[in-house]
Amino acid sequence: MQKITIVKVGGAVVEDDAQLAQLLHDFAAIEGRKVLVHGGGRAATKMAGRLGIETQMVGGRRVTDAKMLEVVTMVYGGLVNKTLVARLQALGINAIGLSGADANVLQSHRRPPRVVDGTTVDYGFVGDVDAASHQSLSLLVEAGLTPVMAPLTHDGRGNILNTNADTIASETAKALARDYDTTLIFAFEKPGVLADPDDDHSVIATITHDSFARLKADGTITGGMLPKVENALAAVDAGVARVIITRADAIDGRHGTVITR
Amino acid sequence: MQKITIVKVGGAVVEDDAQLAQLLHDFAAIEGRKVLVHGGGRAATKMAGRLGIETQMVGGRRVTDAKMLEVVTMVYGGLVNKTLVARLQALGINAIGLSGADANVLQSHRRPPRVVDGTTVDYGFVGDVDAASHQSLSLLVEAGLTPVMAPLTHDGRGNILNTNADTIASETAKALARDYDTTLIFAFEKPGVLADPDDDHSVIATITHDSFARLKADGTITGGMLPKVENALAAVDAGVARVIITRADAIDGRHGTVITR
Repeated sequence: MQKITIVKVGGAVVEDDAQLAQLLHDFAAIEGRKVLVHGGGRAATKMAGRLGIETQMVGGRRVTDAKMLEVVTMVYGGLVNKTLVARLQALGINAIGLSGADANVLQSHRRPPRVVDGTTVDYGFVGDVDAASHQSLSLLVEAGLTPVMAPLTHDGRGNILNTNADTIASETAKALARDYDTTLIFAFEKPGVLADPDDDHSVIATITHDSFARLKADGTITGGMLPKVENALAAVDAGVARVIITRADAIDGRHGTVITR
Repeated sequence: MQKITIVKVGGAVVEDDAQLAQLLHDFAAIEGRKVLVHGGGRAATKMAGRLGIETQMVGGRRVTDAKMLEVVTMVYGGLVNKTLVARLQALGINAIGLSGADANVLQSHRRPPRVVDGTTVDYGFVGDVDAASHQSLSLLVEAGLTPVMAPLTHDGRGNILNTNADTIASETAKALARDYDTTLIFAFEKPGVLADPDDDHSVIATITHDSFARLKADGTITGGMLPKVENALAAVDAGVARVIITRADAIDGRHGTVITR
């Protein structure tokens, strides 16, 4: 089975010149088939501010009304995506930028209103992914292309929907796991899942379902790391060979926390 | 030889809901392989205005400084392109949005400063196309995809460049003419090249090099139509089977002015 690596990188890295240059260099150096999934939330918030559009977040997720949808479509699908693609081309990587609508790679449905902390929240034009097309993705990858995926999907009825970049990465990895030995790398600001959040040297080398249950029960993994690891375990359950949580400057597959069966 | 149709549509159509719906319907109905090339200048000017960025035009071309480059990258590559792709997907067309950087389909170099009316004009981040990749384009088309091309190219050194949509369409058609019997349709506000600019029924059915020389000499074709027809004839000389200049609501290949050998 051919190997493929999916790297997800957040907006903070993409928007910092030095970090971005390092990331693209490291990503270009990954051997074999690969996919880059990017965020861009900070840039979207900044652009919305310049346009006088207020950003509303609920539970860490952006409420996306029609005006905000325009902003994220522009910023994620245009500014961030095309910048990354052009810079990867300069590094000899034949990148191709994709929203979920492009080649129908990621279809979604609009998230129904939800009750959050006793209040009904309508996230607006936010998409929950129904399916990633492993055919379309494999086709592009086998043609020697490197997909660069923006956190946008479509509903099949003509609407772009805003979708969490971690979800895009997971769904893409799960789809590709049908055809490839798949490694999914989540790049963030810490060197991995830490046993002691204040000690960057306390990276937990490996997490499985069993060890996660213990780490959760004894309070080692808490807060924002819980959904990250749960999400990683779900990807592993769905066939992804390994998920690596690591710092953005260490995406070579030899650093960070490996989440596996 | 397989047939392919490239349709270029300007910003005015793309930004009008009713016209856009009609256009996408008609485009979807075109049989066989096809490519859509879009503009978006009005939307870019509007967005620039909202961001307090002044639009400067010289000889009908946008001067693109770093701030304007951000705007056109967002608007052409993101907002307009992804909207068109999502809407074509809803019509059953497996569209894929492309800037010139994506799959390296259109590489360009930054236009050197030029003397226009006695003044040196630096158009800024504007790209003159060096080459369209017929390999990349054919590969996507043969995979059953319909490219939707934004008027952006890249310089191979990491920079996106703003590029005229008519040029994108011509260069794409010329590249595809190596592999296909190629029809290039320019959709604009008139039903074709008119013998009498005030009479929409005076469409000139066919223009060749010979007839163009006469029509130019006797003053029938003047002003903005001259470069359009010259551009079309150059495409024909480069192997494009036929170029059709027609109204945006008549892109079925049976209306408008046919420019051919």
